[in-house]
Amino acid sequence: MRLAIDAMGGDHAPEAIVHGSVKAIEAYKDLKIFLFGNESRIRSYLTNEERIQIIHTDEVITADDEPVRAVRRKKDASMVLAAQYVKEGKADACISAGNTGALMAAGLFYVGRMKGIERPALAPTLPTVDGKGFILLDAGANMDAKPEHLLQYAIIASVYAEKVRNIEEPKIGLLNVGTEQGKGNELTKKAFEMLKEAPIHFIGNVESRDLLNGVADVVVCDGFAGNLVLKSYEGAASTVFSMLKQELTSSLTSKLAASVLKPRLKGLKNKVDYSEYGGAGLFGLQSPVIKAHGSSNENAIFNTIRQARDIVEKNMYEKVSAAIQQLKIKEME
Amino acid sequence: MRLAIDAMGGDHAPEAIVHGSVKAIEAYKDLKIFLFGNESRIRSYLTNEERIQIIHTDEVITADDEPVRAVRRKKDASMVLAAQYVKEGKADACISAGNTGALMAAGLFYVGRMKGIERPALAPTLPTVDGKGFILLDAGANMDAKPEHLLQYAIIASVYAEKVRNIEEPKIGLLNVGTEQGKGNELTKKAFEMLKEAPIHFIGNVESRDLLNGVADVVVCDGFAGNLVLKSYEGAASTVFSMLKQELTSSLTSKLAASVLKPRLKGLKNKVDYSEYGGAGLFGLQSPVIKAHGSSNENAIFNTIRQARDIVEKNMYEKVSAAIQQLKIKEME
Repeated sequence: MRLAIDAMGGDHAPEAIVHGSVKAIEAYKDLKIFLFGNESRIRSYLTNEERIQIIHTDEVITADDEPVRAVRRKKDASMVLAAQYVKEGKADACISAGNTGALMAAGLFYVGRMKGIERPALAPTLPTVDGKGFILLDAGANMDAKPEHLLQYAIIASVYAEKVRNIEEPKIGLLNVGTEQGKGNELTKKAFEMLKEAPIHFIGNVESRDLLNGVADVVVCDGFAGNLVLKSYEGAASTVFSMLKQELTSSLTSKLAASVLKPRLKGLKNKVDYSEYGGAGLFGLQSPVIKAHGSSNENAIFNTIRQARDIVEKNMYEKVSAAIQQLKIKEME
Repeated sequence: MRLAIDAMGGDHAPEAIVHGSVKAIEAYKDLKIFLFGNESRIRSYLTNEERIQIIHTDEVITADDEPVRAVRRKKDASMVLAAQYVKEGKADACISAGNTGALMAAGLFYVGRMKGIERPALAPTLPTVDGKGFILLDAGANMDAKPEHLLQYAIIASVYAEKVRNIEEPKIGLLNVGTEQGKGNELTKKAFEMLKEAPIHFIGNVESRDLLNGVADVVVCDGFAGNLVLKSYEGAASTVFSMLKQELTSSLTSKLAASVLKPRLKGLKNKVDYSEYGGAGLFGLQSPVIKAHGSSNENAIFNTIRQARDIVEKNMYEKVSAAIQQLKIKEME
């Protein structure tokens, strides 16, 4: 099992990436990791070199770079080289916590699309109250999706949920503004008809206010809608927490009471932190490409590596590919 | 100033509607209120009949009714009769806490569209951390909007923010997946170009994670996107609060600390409760039609009546109409 990891992407790179990689190497004896980036900076955090190989490069794609242009011009960027390793068969999967758009572009240019998939999707796992989480896709890769794209997302994520996340008969929902059939815009109305006929456990329309309660294991939508919902959750949760902090520290009695509750509030904050669930898959590419959260710490990187390992080990991509071909054959019948 | 109010809509009807109306009558001496609904039920809550007239009807549109069909068939429903009073010039504005879709349908059929407006929008005011709030439109009336609809929403809400909410040079943002120009789907890309040229204070793209921080006074989007964001905020806030409750009551020490903090948490919950900001305008109709939140209590109804009164008193609709005509003339030039 060989993973290509961009050591220079994300808010805490390269430290968190290197520490997470070392932790993974120590946990999984079958793992070999290639770290792409500045060798001396990487080495300064590397406490164990066993089965870790550094591939030095000085070029980096930043968060501010325009994705497509950056991937075309910065051919030696750490992220681009990691994607190339997958393309050349030197690694089974690649991971980056850097610029999401650039990783998608690098995935498209170098790793390539899976046969039968028109548009890959960004698929993070978001937290639910019961701790099981749900997969939201597309969370922002493809802005103007067609109904058949949503169908493809549903098939891919259904296989992922079943094989990698070990959910039996994963419940697939269509993100919509109401639960009744016939609700929504042109896209969701047409997608509903296609999902109804698909070889998945389709539970119908789901509303954005119910997702965190775990109403579905997989929620499909276009990238514009998914990105809005993702960032709405982020914004609302962080607003409530910051108002809470303000409210709890505004008098001495409150302060005392709050100090008792602090560890519990911290625990709660971690519960809604979706980096705990691993990274976001770029589903629809030929090989696994995983986007770790930009604010990933050592643990989040470790979780993302474990996730990539599971995907490769459980042959998820072969199973997805077979399911997609099955769908195409059925369409032609 | 005459308001037509559906006494039978919402979770706490008719009690909350009647109590809120009495409170408003006592606060505003120029106000006359028509209450539509079951006379004996209304009368059982009516503590002051001064300037309140009951128009009896037994027919009611429920939350489960299919909106358009209900408005067509239930011609004597309390909501329909209230809208008709506005159409016939017997009232200056109407209010209902009932079925949102049906109120929009009743508004379209009876009150009619404002000249120059193709699709009316649902425009609630949502809470912000600083307590000022922002107007989100469309929050769910028109699912497949065109760029020119978003432009019309921006013009209407800009006038409303300035004249009724007393915000000088209201900041108008376009809901999008990134702040840079060129981000988004086909709709937002085209709308951006039109908003840039409009006679409003357009601040560009805004992201759903920043809205609760008050990044804009008015945020425009299509009804599908707006509804998703609205319900995402609702879902995330209620999830965090319920997890908080669970976390805080899980040990005796926490319980004691939590009891000290209870009033503060309650205050915080009110802060994020958007019924505090009044109802949602159905912007784009010929006369003011306001949707009070379904869970409205007496205070929320009072706030909605005050809001309707402000809209009428400040001639908002004439100003909006003039601004829209100005826009049309400019387009033809």
